Amino acid sequence: MKIENIDVHSYPGSEKVYMQGKLHPEVKVGMRKVNLTPTVKIVGEEKLIRENDPVYVYDTSGVYTDPAVKTDINEGIPRIREEWTARRDDLERLPGITSDYGKAREADKSLDSIRFARRHAPYRAKEGRAITQMALARKGIITPEMEYVAIRENMNAEALGIKSHITPEFVRDEIAAGRAVLPANPNHPEAEPMIIGRNFLVKLNTNIGNSALSSGIEEEVGKAVWSCYWGGDTLMDLSTGDNIHETREWIIRNCPVPVGTVPVYQALEKVKGKVEDLTWEIYRDTLIEQAEQGVDYFTIHAGALRAHADMISERLTGIVSRGGSIMTRWAVIHECENFLYTHFDEICEILAKYDVAVSLGDGLRPGSIHDANDRSQFLELDVLGELTEIAWKHNVQVLIEGPGHVPMHKIRENMDRQLEKCHEAPFYTLGPLTTDIAPGYDHITSAIGAAQIAWMGTAMICYVTPKEHLALPNLEDVRNGVITYKIAAHAADIAKGHPGAQVRDDAMSRARYDFRWKDQFNLSLDPARARQYYVESHKDDDRFCTMCGPNFCAMRISQKVSDECAK
Amino acid sequence: MKIENIDVHSYPGSEKVYMQGKLHPEVKVGMRKVNLTPTVKIVGEEKLIRENDPVYVYDTSGVYTDPAVKTDINEGIPRIREEWTARRDDLERLPGITSDYGKAREADKSLDSIRFARRHAPYRAKEGRAITQMALARKGIITPEMEYVAIRENMNAEALGIKSHITPEFVRDEIAAGRAVLPANPNHPEAEPMIIGRNFLVKLNTNIGNSALSSGIEEEVGKAVWSCYWGGDTLMDLSTGDNIHETREWIIRNCPVPVGTVPVYQALEKVKGKVEDLTWEIYRDTLIEQAEQGVDYFTIHAGALRAHADMISERLTGIVSRGGSIMTRWAVIHECENFLYTHFDEICEILAKYDVAVSLGDGLRPGSIHDANDRSQFLELDVLGELTEIAWKHNVQVLIEGPGHVPMHKIRENMDRQLEKCHEAPFYTLGPLTTDIAPGYDHITSAIGAAQIAWMGTAMICYVTPKEHLALPNLEDVRNGVITYKIAAHAADIAKGHPGAQVRDDAMSRARYDFRWKDQFNLSLDPARARQYYVESHKDDDRFCTMCGPNFCAMRISQKVSDECAK
Repeated sequence: MKIENIDVHSYPGSEKVYMQGKLHPEVKVGMRKVNLTPTVKIVGEEKLIRENDPVYVYDTSGVYTDPAVKTDINEGIPRIREEWTARRDDLERLPGITSDYGKAREADKSLDSIRFARRHAPYRAKEGRAITQMALARKGIITPEMEYVAIRENMNAEALGIKSHITPEFVRDEIAAGRAVLPANPNHPEAEPMIIGRNFLVKLNTNIGNSALSSGIEEEVGKAVWSCYWGGDTLMDLSTGDNIHETREWIIRNCPVPVGTVPVYQALEKVKGKVEDLTWEIYRDTLIEQAEQGVDYFTIHAGALRAHADMISERLTGIVSRGGSIMTRWAVIHECENFLYTHFDEICEILAKYDVAVSLGDGLRPGSIHDANDRSQFLELDVLGELTEIAWKHNVQVLIEGPGHVPMHKIRENMDRQLEKCHEAPFYTLGPLTTDIAPGYDHITSAIGAAQIAWMGTAMICYVTPKEHLALPNLEDVRNGVITYKIAAHAADIAKGHPGAQVRDDAMSRARYDFRWKDQFNLSLDPARARQYYVESHKDDDRFCTMCGPNFCAMRISQKVSDECAK
Repeated sequence: MKIENIDVHSYPGSEKVYMQGKLHPEVKVGMRKVNLTPTVKIVGEEKLIRENDPVYVYDTSGVYTDPAVKTDINEGIPRIREEWTARRDDLERLPGITSDYGKAREADKSLDSIRFARRHAPYRAKEGRAITQMALARKGIITPEMEYVAIRENMNAEALGIKSHITPEFVRDEIAAGRAVLPANPNHPEAEPMIIGRNFLVKLNTNIGNSALSSGIEEEVGKAVWSCYWGGDTLMDLSTGDNIHETREWIIRNCPVPVGTVPVYQALEKVKGKVEDLTWEIYRDTLIEQAEQGVDYFTIHAGALRAHADMISERLTGIVSRGGSIMTRWAVIHECENFLYTHFDEICEILAKYDVAVSLGDGLRPGSIHDANDRSQFLELDVLGELTEIAWKHNVQVLIEGPGHVPMHKIRENMDRQLEKCHEAPFYTLGPLTTDIAPGYDHITSAIGAAQIAWMGTAMICYVTPKEHLALPNLEDVRNGVITYKIAAHAADIAKGHPGAQVRDDAMSRARYDFRWKDQFNLSLDPARARQYYVESHKDDDRFCTMCGPNFCAMRISQKVSDECAK
């Protein structure tokens, strides 16, 4: 199997630049530098030229937008963190993968035609060693990953001399306190370090993955790269169709951002979709299989308990989390407790060996405005709080997943309770959607909620595409979903006062007032679309656009006012 | 000139129904009744069928979606309020239009080819009579218009027996207090009464209109009808190009919602775009011309004073309101005060004669995150408060226009100040946009702000289309802008607890849980798009969709859990 290279390019008007670490000189943080044209003003016969400073943009696209690196999907992208991993004395390299299922897939010659060819032996903690970023932070160590994210978060602050609270020490302390998560499975050294916590930039996750009814490996890898290009900070592969193992390998080897999964999906596929046949042993092997491939975080629905099942009759839309419905049904059928809850200590032991973070799934998130903030939702949240403390005992990093569908006046309670009950572990919400009546536009219904909850303190928001409730997203839906969530995240960063967040907005505003159209496009979240809309309707004179025509351009008139007032 | 009928149809799965007034039996409020299919459940060998109640939807589409009415754009739509007007003893019917410009256009045979053929002599207040809805409300009168909006606002509340605070008396009292505006120029009897106030459903305005560089009459009428079809509550014709007078006539005669304009645009066209040549006399004649055509509200930038011009150098983007920049420049050139401010009493005298509401323009609204909530913006707001009191003295209904570009953490101050300084006159905001960096997606950046400010108490939100900052919107942009703002408005209605607002959401949620796909489409804000996305990727079995496939449908598993728990 050969996959064509994904068609993404450098961003227009931009350079890829790298900023080096001081504590760890091997750290080189890639970022996008948007170069701007000068402001030109004609005063009488004089032409006044003022240079405009470049703007640095947080860049999730990895080497795909570095013209100096030739990428090949069949080879995977550079394993930038492997040299850091290799130096560590707390990790060992195994001779090969250890999960039974993984070995069976590896031995199956019939899969050769769809397999990612290159093999990498997995890393794992040496016996008795605590290797997670949380464990290291608690020991007071600033890892290369921590310095990396400190530089990354401060891009414009650094360039413009804006004072920032985000130092490598601060990053370490937030991770140690559990207030931030730095996903860093050593088996995914292709991922550039990033941090999820409410005292940092708001992050966004994108979901991709096939279902039994659609989509192949090539398409999913394409979506993964596309998502990073547009600004996805992490990527969840939610595949539930064929060849989940092989699809994931292709994605991870080519993905410059952390990858998450919901392991119970694959476990269920292994028992042909029969919930009753799920077992802890199959699930356990799935965790190891995926951890050794390099998954950086697992969504685990350990908080959906047997007792909650009896409450869902109070709801309009029952259980809308796939993992939650699977685990609840399993518990009901077997008349016993959810095995993810009863085995949670063992789960954490496995996760700790590979520094896989746990994202505690909200199996009972509301699927409708009606069900928001109900009894079962908040009872589950209490359980997630207990599980957080268990995970932290194992030095496992924790995220808490949140709703779902919530009307605006009920959003605040979600955030406040989560902080209280889950001891400030980072909140990671899906939206929330603020109304149920707009299928086809749920990227928007949910961005309205996501911007608010992110401002209140949610650390990562999970995108929703226009196809939500209707179908799986295609490439264009992924783009729309990511840009919509970049808007929500950025609006929240400004409202929270993140150091330097407003620099890009101000540069855009200056470009608008100067009629520097190219700079406006290049500073946009989606330069291609902004340019396209302009060009489609544009005539010759670029001192105004078709919105207002020559006599009605407020900014042109405004400049005359300024000139006249200054006389 | 003949215009083809606009291609809009009845809404799928819906009927047009009319609810009659009790105080005024001539009042017949059109609404959309969405009929739902029954819930079918197979239990063992039994088939259980439960009927689902219809849902009533607020309907802005007028007769265009009534299959019993044959519409013809060349004839105009039925003048439903004319019989109410004819009965009034405080109005007189003039022999013909009275503005000089209007008469000149009427006499110009060269315009026959583009003219709307039918003429209607204008209505005006009899000498000495106070005829506005505000004047009548202050006298304790409940007009047919007031009963109409009370019925309209209570659609689902009435059907479901939900107690509502909105009675005809309440409507009257809110108008009398200035807290709500009921636009009702008797010269636009085609408009169905609606109300703008923070104790009612949040309304949305759409802007259309040509510029010197684009778009003809047919296209603009098409946009107007299209906007009403998707849910626009009022429509502003912001034309600045050719044949503004004739374009507006076509629009008003075919528009079932109130129409607003910014008269200074046409006044400026009359002096060929030369700001310095604007005069009070030309402006005054323009007011009369447009009032007699039937414009329901005028945006008037009377608060942008000469003194403010000196402050705009503090800004990144100066003045971004066209009207504000024009009036400020006029004041600077002529070294005197804005004539809209100095002539405000005379303006109100004209408006009072035709019950045209004034929408006090925010000429100094911020055009960038940087400029939000600055000195000049809030100084102008103080002036708008003074002008509100003057207008109310004349019984002129008042709206206050608001920003613009405002980051989330600065939105609340806008709302609180507006209520205080402008004595609770309804706030009418453009967005606000919560970031500057997403041209091509500014319907979304602004819906995030609009939902919040509407929840806080803004009565009407002015839509923004994806083309904002780049070009004029086409039909598809209008649709996207309207639906996006319906989302923001509806999210706010739910958060505010409007009686019955959540009925449609709950019906949608039940339809989801039952896999009643057609009902889901029909209950959607955009049924056509929801259906399209579904159909494009759908296979045979409608018990699940391509998002999850057969084994991973949470709601299907959830129903099994419920069944198993109930055993």
